[in-house]
Amino acid sequence: MKAVVPFKVVNAKSRLSTLLTLEERTKLAMLMLDDITGVLKEAGLGIVLLTTTPFSYDAEIVVSEKDLNSALNDFLKAETEPVMIVMADIPLISLKNVRDILNSTADLIISPGRGGGTNIQYIKDPQRYHVDYYGASFLDHVHIAEENGLSVEVFDSFNASTDIDETYDLVELYIHGKGEGAKYLRTFTALDVSKGRVRVVREDAHKITPQHMPGKYVATE
Amino acid sequence: MKAVVPFKVVNAKSRLSTLLTLEERTKLAMLMLDDITGVLKEAGLGIVLLTTTPFSYDAEIVVSEKDLNSALNDFLKAETEPVMIVMADIPLISLKNVRDILNSTADLIISPGRGGGTNIQYIKDPQRYHVDYYGASFLDHVHIAEENGLSVEVFDSFNASTDIDETYDLVELYIHGKGEGAKYLRTFTALDVSKGRVRVVREDAHKITPQHMPGKYVATE
Repeated sequence: MKAVVPFKVVNAKSRLSTLLTLEERTKLAMLMLDDITGVLKEAGLGIVLLTTTPFSYDAEIVVSEKDLNSALNDFLKAETEPVMIVMADIPLISLKNVRDILNSTADLIISPGRGGGTNIQYIKDPQRYHVDYYGASFLDHVHIAEENGLSVEVFDSFNASTDIDETYDLVELYIHGKGEGAKYLRTFTALDVSKGRVRVVREDAHKITPQHMPGKYVATE
Repeated sequence: MKAVVPFKVVNAKSRLSTLLTLEERTKLAMLMLDDITGVLKEAGLGIVLLTTTPFSYDAEIVVSEKDLNSALNDFLKAETEPVMIVMADIPLISLKNVRDILNSTADLIISPGRGGGTNIQYIKDPQRYHVDYYGASFLDHVHIAEENGLSVEVFDSFNASTDIDETYDLVELYIHGKGEGAKYLRTFTALDVSKGRVRVVREDAHKITPQHMPGKYVATE
Protein backbone atom coordinates (compact mmCIF):
# COMPACT_ATOMS: atom_id res chain seq x y z
CA MET A 1 0.00 0.00 0.00
CA LYS A 2 1.19 3.50 -0.78
CA ALA A 3 1.66 6.56 1.38
CA VAL A 4 1.82 9.77 -0.64
CA VAL A 5 3.80 12.58 0.95
CA PRO A 6 3.69 15.99 -0.78
CA PHE A 7 7.04 17.68 -0.24
CA LYS A 8 8.13 21.19 -1.14
CA VAL A 9 11.80 21.06 -2.12
CA VAL A 10 12.42 24.74 -2.83
CA ASN A 11 12.18 27.29 0.00
CA ALA A 12 10.77 24.68 2.38
CA LYS A 13 8.88 25.79 5.49
CA SER A 14 9.07 29.45 4.50
CA ARG A 15 6.91 30.56 7.44
CA LEU A 16 9.71 29.52 9.80
CA SER A 17 12.00 32.10 8.24
CA THR A 18 11.60 34.57 11.09
CA LEU A 19 13.53 32.15 13.30
CA LEU A 20 15.46 29.82 10.98
CA THR A 21 17.81 30.46 8.06
CA LEU A 22 17.07 28.91 4.67
CA GLU A 23 19.74 26.30 5.31
CA GLU A 24 18.28 25.43 8.72
CA ARG A 25 14.75 25.27 7.36
CA THR A 26 15.83 23.02 4.53
CA LYS A 27 17.69 20.68 6.85
CA LEU A 28 14.83 20.59 9.36
CA ALA A 29 12.30 19.88 6.60
CA MET A 30 14.47 17.03 5.29
CA LEU A 31 14.93 15.49 8.74
CA MET A 32 11.21 15.72 9.47
CA LEU A 33 10.53 14.06 6.11
CA ASP A 34 12.97 11.28 7.03
CA ASP A 35 11.30 10.84 10.43
CA ILE A 36 7.85 10.60 8.84
CA THR A 37 8.77 8.34 5.94
CA GLY A 38 10.78 6.16 8.34
CA VAL A 39 7.66 5.52 10.43
CA LEU A 40 5.53 4.92 7.33
CA LYS A 41 8.06 2.43 5.94
CA GLU A 42 8.24 0.65 9.28
CA ALA A 43 4.47 0.23 9.07
CA GLY A 44 4.96 -1.47 5.69
CA LEU A 45 3.90 1.37 3.41
CA GLY A 46 5.60 2.22 0.12
CA ILE A 47 6.52 5.90 -0.04
CA VAL A 48 5.53 8.13 -2.94
CA LEU A 49 7.05 11.58 -2.77
CA LEU A 50 5.00 14.16 -4.63
CA THR A 51 7.09 17.18 -5.59
CA THR A 52 7.07 20.08 -8.00
CA THR A 53 10.83 19.76 -8.61
CA PRO A 54 12.89 16.65 -9.47
CA PHE A 55 14.48 15.42 -6.27
CA SER A 56 16.66 12.53 -5.19
CA TYR A 57 15.16 10.49 -2.35
CA ASP A 58 14.72 6.85 -1.44
CA ALA A 59 11.10 6.67 -2.60
CA GLU A 60 8.98 6.65 -5.71
CA ILE A 61 9.15 10.24 -6.96
CA VAL A 62 6.18 11.82 -8.70
CA VAL A 63 6.93 15.25 -10.14
CA SER A 64 3.96 17.45 -10.97
CA GLU A 65 3.87 21.13 -11.68
CA LYS A 66 0.19 21.29 -10.92
CA ASP A 67 -1.19 22.68 -7.68
CA LEU A 68 -1.36 20.31 -4.71
CA ASN A 69 -5.00 19.33 -5.17
CA SER A 70 -4.74 18.65 -8.90
CA ALA A 71 -1.52 16.68 -8.47
CA LEU A 72 -3.00 14.56 -5.68
CA ASN A 73 -6.25 14.00 -7.53
CA ASP A 74 -4.34 12.92 -10.65
CA PHE A 75 -2.55 10.42 -8.46
CA LEU A 76 -5.74 9.14 -6.80
CA LYS A 77 -7.45 8.69 -10.16
CA ALA A 78 -4.78 6.19 -11.18
CA GLU A 79 -4.90 4.17 -7.95
CA THR A 80 -7.13 1.19 -7.21
CA GLU A 81 -5.61 0.21 -3.85
CA PRO A 82 -6.05 2.16 -0.58
CA VAL A 83 -3.86 5.26 -0.30
CA MET A 84 -2.66 7.22 2.69
CA ILE A 85 -1.88 10.90 2.17
CA VAL A 86 0.47 12.23 4.83
CA MET A 87 1.68 15.82 5.18
CA ALA A 88 5.45 16.23 5.43
CA ASP A 89 5.33 18.49 8.49
CA ILE A 90 3.86 16.19 11.14
CA PRO A 91 7.06 14.84 12.70
CA LEU A 92 5.44 13.66 15.94
CA ILE A 93 3.59 10.86 14.18
CA SER A 94 4.40 7.47 15.69
CA LEU A 95 4.38 3.91 14.41
CA LYS A 96 1.42 3.25 16.70
CA ASN A 97 -0.46 6.14 15.04
CA VAL A 98 0.08 4.70 11.56
CA ARG A 99 -0.88 1.18 12.65
CA ASP A 100 -4.02 2.48 14.38
CA ILE A 101 -5.01 4.28 11.19
CA LEU A 102 -4.37 1.17 9.09
CA ASN A 103 -6.52 -0.86 11.49
CA SER A 104 -9.50 1.49 11.23
CA THR A 105 -12.45 0.27 9.23
CA ALA A 106 -14.08 3.45 7.87
CA ASP A 107 -13.87 4.36 4.17
CA LEU A 108 -12.04 7.56 5.07
CA ILE A 109 -9.89 8.03 8.16
CA ILE A 110 -9.02 11.69 8.56
CA SER A 111 -6.66 13.27 11.03
CA PRO A 112 -7.36 16.96 11.62
CA GLY A 113 -4.60 19.53 11.68
CA ARG A 114 -4.85 22.64 13.81
CA GLY A 115 -6.90 25.49 12.39
CA GLY A 116 -9.23 23.40 10.25
CA GLY A 117 -6.57 21.62 8.25
CA THR A 118 -6.10 17.99 7.29
CA ASN A 119 -2.87 16.20 8.19
CA ILE A 120 -3.54 12.59 7.24
CA GLN A 121 -6.15 10.93 5.07
CA TYR A 122 -6.44 7.20 4.64
CA ILE A 123 -8.62 6.59 1.62
CA LYS A 124 -9.84 3.04 1.11
CA ASP A 125 -11.13 3.55 -2.44
CA PRO A 126 -9.33 6.41 -4.22
CA GLN A 127 -11.71 6.08 -7.16
CA ARG A 128 -14.57 7.35 -5.03
CA TYR A 129 -12.82 10.34 -3.49
CA HIS A 130 -10.94 13.51 -4.26
CA VAL A 131 -9.05 15.94 -2.06
CA ASP A 132 -9.50 19.66 -1.51
CA TYR A 133 -6.71 21.10 0.62
CA TYR A 134 -6.35 24.73 1.84
CA GLY A 135 -8.87 26.66 3.90
CA ALA A 136 -11.00 24.62 6.28
CA SER A 137 -10.03 21.46 4.43
CA PHE A 138 -11.15 19.19 7.25
CA LEU A 139 -14.77 20.23 6.69
CA ASP A 140 -14.38 20.03 2.92
CA HIS A 141 -12.97 16.51 3.10
CA VAL A 142 -15.74 15.30 5.40
CA HIS A 143 -18.23 16.87 3.04
CA ILE A 144 -16.69 15.20 -0.04
CA ALA A 145 -16.74 11.83 1.72
CA GLU A 146 -20.39 12.24 2.71
CA GLU A 147 -21.35 13.28 -0.82
CA ASN A 148 -19.74 10.08 -2.09
CA GLY A 149 -21.47 7.91 0.53
CA LEU A 150 -18.26 7.11 2.37
CA SER A 151 -18.09 6.44 6.11
CA VAL A 152 -15.70 8.75 7.93
CA GLU A 153 -13.67 8.29 11.09
CA VAL A 154 -11.87 11.19 12.73
CA PHE A 155 -8.46 10.06 13.99
CA ASP A 156 -8.02 11.64 17.40
CA SER A 157 -4.28 12.14 17.90
CA PHE A 158 -2.22 15.00 19.27
CA ASN A 159 0.83 13.66 17.40
CA ALA A 160 -0.93 13.52 14.07
CA SER A 161 -2.67 16.88 14.57
CA THR A 162 0.58 18.72 15.22
CA ASP A 163 1.89 20.28 12.01
CA ILE A 164 5.05 22.36 12.14
CA ASP A 165 4.15 25.37 10.09
CA GLU A 166 4.68 28.54 12.12
CA THR A 167 7.50 29.33 14.54
CA TYR A 168 5.24 28.79 17.57
CA ASP A 169 4.62 25.23 16.34
CA LEU A 170 8.30 24.54 16.97
CA VAL A 171 7.48 24.38 20.69
CA GLU A 172 5.65 21.10 20.07
CA LEU A 173 8.58 19.68 18.13
CA TYR A 174 11.07 20.83 20.74
CA ILE A 175 9.11 19.40 23.67
CA HIS A 176 7.47 16.29 22.24
CA GLY A 177 9.67 15.32 19.28
CA LYS A 178 11.61 12.06 19.44
CA GLY A 179 13.01 11.98 15.90
CA GLU A 180 16.02 13.47 14.14
CA GLY A 181 14.20 16.70 13.28
CA ALA A 182 13.56 17.44 16.95
CA LYS A 183 17.12 16.51 17.90
CA TYR A 184 18.48 18.87 15.27
CA LEU A 185 16.22 21.72 16.39
CA ARG A 186 17.38 21.32 19.98
CA THR A 187 21.04 21.67 18.96
CA PHE A 188 20.73 25.38 18.26
CA THR A 189 17.55 26.58 19.97
CA ALA A 190 16.20 26.76 23.50
CA LEU A 191 12.83 27.00 25.20
CA ASP A 192 11.97 30.43 26.55
CA VAL A 193 9.52 30.07 29.42
CA SER A 194 10.04 33.57 30.80
CA LYS A 195 6.99 35.37 29.41
CA GLY A 196 3.83 33.34 29.87
CA ARG A 197 3.65 31.68 26.51
CA VAL A 198 6.44 29.18 25.85
CA ARG A 199 8.53 29.91 22.76
CA VAL A 200 11.46 28.40 20.90
CA VAL A 201 14.27 30.97 20.70
CA ARG A 202 17.82 30.98 19.43
CA GLU A 203 19.25 32.35 22.65
CA ASP A 204 20.32 30.27 25.61
CA ALA A 205 18.33 32.37 28.07
CA HIS A 206 15.93 30.41 30.27
CA LYS A 207 17.05 27.18 28.71
CA ILE A 208 15.27 24.13 30.01
CA THR A 209 17.82 21.93 31.73
CA PRO A 210 18.54 18.50 30.25
CA GLN A 211 16.82 16.59 33.06
CA HIS A 212 13.57 18.22 32.01
CA MET A 213 13.82 16.86 28.50
CA PRO A 214 11.84 13.96 27.07
CA GLY A 215 13.32 10.72 28.29
CA LYS A 216 11.92 7.56 29.72
CA TYR A 217 8.44 8.96 30.18
CA VAL A 218 7.45 7.84 26.71
CA ALA A 219 5.00 5.03 27.14
CA THR A 220 2.72 5.42 24.14
CA GLU A 221 4.50 2.89 21.92
CA MET B 1 -13.09 8.63 42.00
CA LYS B 2 -12.79 12.38 41.75
CA ALA B 3 -12.14 14.70 38.84
CA VAL B 4 -10.93 18.13 39.92
CA VAL B 5 -11.74 20.97 37.54
CA PRO B 6 -10.22 24.38 38.30
CA PHE B 7 -12.65 27.05 37.16
CA LYS B 8 -12.24 30.79 37.02
CA VAL B 9 -15.61 32.37 37.80
CA VAL B 10 -14.69 36.05 37.48
CA ASN B 11 -13.65 37.46 34.08
CA ALA B 12 -13.49 33.98 32.58
CA LYS B 13 -11.48 33.39 29.39
CA SER B 14 -10.18 36.96 29.36
CA ARG B 15 -7.93 36.32 26.34
CA LEU B 16 -11.03 35.85 24.20
CA SER B 17 -12.05 39.44 24.90
CA THR B 18 -10.88 40.72 21.51
CA LEU B 19 -13.72 38.74 19.92
CA LEU B 20 -16.26 38.05 22.68
CA THR B 21 -18.01 40.29 25.17
CA LEU B 22 -17.75 39.55 28.90
CA GLU B 23 -21.26 38.13 28.81
CA GLU B 24 -20.45 35.88 25.84
CA ARG B 25 -17.19 34.71 27.38
CA THR B 26 -18.91 33.91 30.65
CA LYS B 27 -21.66 31.97 28.92
CA LEU B 28 -19.19 30.10 26.70
CA ALA B 29 -17.00 29.22 29.68
CA MET B 30 -20.04 27.90 31.59
CA LEU B 31 -21.25 25.82 28.64
CA MET B 32 -17.78 24.37 28.08
CA LEU B 33 -17.64 23.53 31.80
CA ASP B 34 -21.01 21.79 31.52
CA ASP B 35 -19.82 19.85 28.47
CA ILE B 36 -16.67 18.70 30.24
CA THR B 37 -18.22 17.84 33.59
CA GLY B 38 -21.05 16.07 31.74
CA VAL B 39 -18.56 13.73 30.07
CA LEU B 40 -16.67 13.19 33.32
CA LYS B 41 -19.89 12.37 35.19
CA GLU B 42 -20.93 9.97 32.44
CA ALA B 43 -17.62 8.18 32.96
CA GLY B 44 -18.55 7.77 36.63
CA LEU B 45 -16.34 10.47 38.13
CA GLY B 46 -17.40 12.76 40.97
CA ILE B 47 -16.80 16.40 40.11
CA VAL B 48 -14.87 18.74 42.37
CA LEU B 49 -14.90 22.34 41.21
CA LEU B 50 -11.91 24.30 42.44
CA THR B 51 -12.61 28.04 42.45
CA THR B 52 -11.33 31.21 44.01
CA THR B 53 -14.87 32.56 44.45
CA PRO B 54 -17.93 30.86 45.99
CA PHE B 55 -20.06 29.55 43.14
CA SER B 56 -23.24 27.57 42.75
CA TYR B 57 -22.80 24.43 40.66
CA ASP B 58 -23.87 20.80 40.75
CA ALA B 59 -20.57 19.55 42.13
CA GLU B 60 -18.46 19.53 45.26
CA ILE B 61 -17.13 23.09 45.48
CA VAL B 62 -13.69 23.77 46.92
CA VAL B 63 -12.96 27.48 47.34
CA SER B 64 -9.33 28.48 47.73
CA GLU B 65 -7.76 31.89 47.44
CA LYS B 66 -4.36 30.36 46.87
CA ASP B 67 -2.72 30.19 43.45
CA LEU B 68 -3.67 27.25 41.22
CA ASN B 69 -0.67 25.09 42.11
CA SER B 70 -0.96 25.57 45.88
CA ALA B 71 -4.72 24.99 45.83
CA LEU B 72 -4.35 21.80 43.77
CA ASN B 73 -1.48 20.53 45.87
CA ASP B 74 -3.48 21.14 49.07
CA PHE B 75 -6.22 19.06 47.53
CA LEU B 76 -3.88 16.24 46.43
CA LYS B 77 -2.31 16.06 49.89
CA ALA B 78 -5.68 15.20 51.39
CA GLU B 79 -6.56 12.51 48.82
CA THR B 80 -5.71 8.82 49.02
CA GLU B 81 -7.66 7.66 45.96
CA PRO B 82 -6.67 8.33 42.32
CA VAL B 83 -7.49 11.84 41.11
CA MET B 84 -8.00 13.25 37.63
CA ILE B 85 -7.23 16.94 37.11
CA VAL B 86 -9.02 18.33 34.09
CA MET B 87 -8.75 21.86 32.73
CA ALA B 88 -12.07 23.64 32.17
CA ASP B 89 -11.23 24.77 28.62
CA ILE B 90 -10.94 21.47 26.76
CA PRO B 91 -14.48 21.11 25.45
CA LEU B 92 -13.64 18.58 22.73
CA ILE B 93 -12.94 15.86 25.27
CA SER B 94 -15.09 12.79 24.67
CA LEU B 95 -16.39 9.98 26.84
CA LYS B 96 -14.05 7.63 24.97
CA ASN B 97 -11.11 9.88 25.91
CA VAL B 98 -11.98 9.75 29.61
CA ARG B 99 -12.54 5.99 29.54
CA ASP B 100 -9.23 5.44 27.72
CA ILE B 101 -7.43 7.48 30.37
CA LEU B 102 -9.13 5.55 33.19
CA ASN B 103 -8.08 2.28 31.53
CA SER B 104 -4.41 3.25 31.32
CA THR B 105 -2.07 1.55 33.74
CA ALA B 106 0.74 4.08 34.28
CA ASP B 107 1.12 5.95 37.59
CA LEU B 108 0.64 9.25 35.78
CA ILE B 109 -1.32 9.68 32.57
CA ILE B 110 -0.71 13.14 31.16
CA SER B 111 -2.41 14.81 28.23
CA PRO B 112 -0.35 17.63 26.71
CA GLY B 113 -1.89 20.95 25.82
CA ARG B 114 -0.56 23.03 22.97
CA GLY B 115 2.51 25.12 23.69
CA GLY B 116 3.97 22.93 26.42
CA GLY B 117 0.92 22.93 28.68
CA THR B 118 -0.87 20.17 30.55
CA ASN B 119 -4.58 19.63 29.97
CA ILE B 120 -5.32 16.43 31.89
CA GLN B 121 -3.45 14.52 34.57
CA TYR B 122 -4.63 11.23 35.99
CA ILE B 123 -2.72 10.64 39.19
CA LYS B 124 -2.96 7.18 40.67
CA ASP B 125 -1.37 8.06 44.03
CA PRO B 126 -1.81 11.76 44.88
CA GLN B 127 0.42 11.31 47.95
CA ARG B 128 3.43 10.75 45.71
CA TYR B 129 2.90 13.66 43.32
CA HIS B 130 2.46 17.40 43.13
CA VAL B 131 1.55 19.70 40.26
CA ASP B 132 3.39 22.65 38.77
CA TYR B 133 1.27 24.45 36.18
CA TYR B 134 2.28 27.47 34.05
CA GLY B 135 5.24 27.63 31.65
CA ALA B 136 6.25 24.36 30.02
CA SER B 137 4.26 22.45 32.61
CA PHE B 138 4.24 19.26 30.55
CA LEU B 139 7.99 18.91 31.01
CA ASP B 140 7.76 19.89 34.67
CA HIS B 141 5.09 17.29 35.35
CA VAL B 142 7.02 14.54 33.61
CA HIS B 143 10.07 15.56 35.62
CA ILE B 144 8.17 15.51 38.92
CA ALA B 145 6.80 12.06 38.13
CA GLU B 146 10.25 10.72 37.29
CA GLU B 147 11.74 12.21 40.46
CA ASN B 148 9.09 10.36 42.43
CA GLY B 149 9.68 7.09 40.61
CA LEU B 150 6.31 7.15 38.84
CA SER B 151 5.69 5.62 35.41
CA VAL B 152 4.30 8.11 32.91
CA GLU B 153 2.08 7.67 29.88
CA VAL B 154 1.46 10.48 27.43
CA PHE B 155 -2.16 10.49 26.33
CA ASP B 156 -2.15 11.15 22.60
CA SER B 157 -5.41 12.92 21.78
CA PHE B 158 -6.27 15.88 19.59
CA ASN B 159 -9.48 16.39 21.57
CA ALA B 160 -7.74 16.47 24.92
CA SER B 161 -4.86 18.61 23.64
CA THR B 162 -7.17 21.34 22.35
CA ASP B 163 -7.58 24.07 24.94
CA ILE B 164 -9.67 27.10 24.10
CA ASP B 165 -7.56 29.95 25.32
CA GLU B 166 -6.93 32.41 22.50
CA THR B 167 -9.34 33.57 19.80
CA TYR B 168 -7.64 31.41 17.15
CA ASP B 169 -8.39 28.36 19.31
CA LEU B 170 -12.09 29.02 18.68
CA VAL B 171 -11.60 27.58 15.20
CA GLU B 172 -11.16 24.13 16.75
CA LEU B 173 -14.30 24.53 18.85
CA TYR B 174 -16.28 25.84 15.90
CA ILE B 175 -15.19 23.03 13.56
CA HIS B 176 -14.83 20.02 15.85
CA GLY B 177 -17.07 20.80 18.83
CA LYS B 178 -20.12 18.65 19.44
CA GLY B 179 -21.25 20.07 22.78
CA GLU B 180 -23.33 23.03 23.91
CA GLY B 181 -20.34 25.40 23.99
CA ALA B 182 -19.68 24.82 20.30
CA LYS B 183 -23.37 25.14 19.44
CA TYR B 184 -23.56 28.45 21.26
CA LEU B 185 -20.42 29.78 19.56
CA ARG B 186 -21.85 28.92 16.15
CA THR B 187 -25.01 30.93 16.84
CA PHE B 188 -23.24 34.27 16.55
CA THR B 189 -19.95 33.63 14.75
CA ALA B 190 -18.84 32.33 11.37
CA LEU B 191 -15.74 30.79 9.87
CA ASP B 192 -13.70 33.11 7.71
CA VAL B 193 -11.72 31.09 5.18
CA SER B 194 -10.92 34.01 2.89
CA LYS B 195 -7.34 34.78 3.91
CA GLY B 196 -5.26 31.63 4.19
CA ARG B 197 -5.56 31.00 7.87
CA VAL B 198 -9.05 30.04 9.01
CA ARG B 199 -10.53 32.33 11.68
CA VAL B 200 -13.70 32.63 13.69
CA VAL B 201 -15.27 36.03 13.07
CA ARG B 202 -18.46 37.77 14.11
CA GLU B 203 -19.47 38.70 10.59
CA ASP B 204 -21.38 36.50 8.23
CA ALA B 205 -18.86 36.94 5.41
CA HIS B 206 -17.58 33.69 3.90
CA LYS B 207 -19.77 31.69 6.18
CA ILE B 208 -19.39 27.94 5.85
CA THR B 209 -22.69 26.56 4.65
CA PRO B 210 -24.63 24.21 6.91
CA GLN B 211 -23.92 21.11 4.82
CA HIS B 212 -20.23 21.56 5.61
CA MET B 213 -20.82 21.39 9.33
CA PRO B 214 -20.05 18.45 11.57
CA GLY B 215 -22.71 15.82 11.20
CA LYS B 216 -22.72 12.10 10.73
CA TYR B 217 -18.98 11.87 10.14
CA VAL B 218 -18.34 11.41 13.83
CA ALA B 219 -17.27 7.84 14.32
CA THR B 220 -14.86 8.06 17.23
CA GLU B 221 -17.35 7.14 19.94
